[in-house]
Amino acid sequence: MIKKVDHIAIVVQDLEATVQVYEKVFGLKPERIETVQDQKVRSALFPIGDGSEVELIQPIDTESGVAKFLEKKGEGMHHIAFEVDDIEQELKSMGDKGVELIDKQPRKGMAGMIAFLHPKSTKGVLIELCEKV
Amino acid sequence: MIKKVDHIAIVVQDLEATVQVYEKVFGLKPERIETVQDQKVRSALFPIGDGSEVELIQPIDTESGVAKFLEKKGEGMHHIAFEVDDIEQELKSMGDKGVELIDKQPRKGMAGMIAFLHPKSTKGVLIELCEKV
Repeated sequence: MIKKVDHIAIVVQDLEATVQVYEKVFGLKPERIETVQDQKVRSALFPIGDGSEVELIQPIDTESGVAKFLEKKGEGMHHIAFEVDDIEQELKSMGDKGVELIDKQPRKGMAGMIAFLHPKSTKGVLIELCEKV
Repeated sequence: MIKKVDHIAIVVQDLEATVQVYEKVFGLKPERIETVQDQKVRSALFPIGDGSEVELIQPIDTESGVAKFLEKKGEGMHHIAFEVDDIEQELKSMGDKGVELIDKQPRKGMAGMIAFLHPKSTKGVLIELCEKV
């Protein structure tokens, strides 16, 4: 059902400065840095080992969920993404079990087709599901 | 240098209730549940895919770092652990680069020999290094 931890997303104030910290402290280099208009963030992806990634995200507006998270809670871990085989089926199954879904239908994201579950249903942790396409 | 994401630790109020949520929502079953006296937590480990784990931790006292985190920030992601080949060498190299270390020497933990870096040096994220033994 859950294949692996696809990525861990960390919200930061200053993407470039944090990329430099990850290079200096961990010797990690970003595979790519890009703007994700959909989520109103700039993102840097660091592959680690066999297929898990650390994603740094910096909000590019003041209204998005990520921007509000940063304002309220400060820098830190934002969400965990689990890769699944069949995201439509997972969402249906979770919906049937009463899990609160932020995205009732999968949508296109950086990591393939994605959907977020509401932290209310997962004890305070924002979880993203993704299916590679 | 960094081999993989070893685990993501999530602090919770009620370990048993959260284990049930992870079983229900994700179909995940804990590999083991145990008390880690050293860190004053009870812990449930869920293996996911090839070697990454989600670790739920519940404080068992009110004075530990984890207990204070829970009191101050509420339930949510607590730290990320990266597996490294040679933890002593990594700590020395990081110390030489001016990274602030919570543990200047590796110590025995659940995931082998472990050491924590101070979030001051990693833009607000608590990072654990671990070397399997």
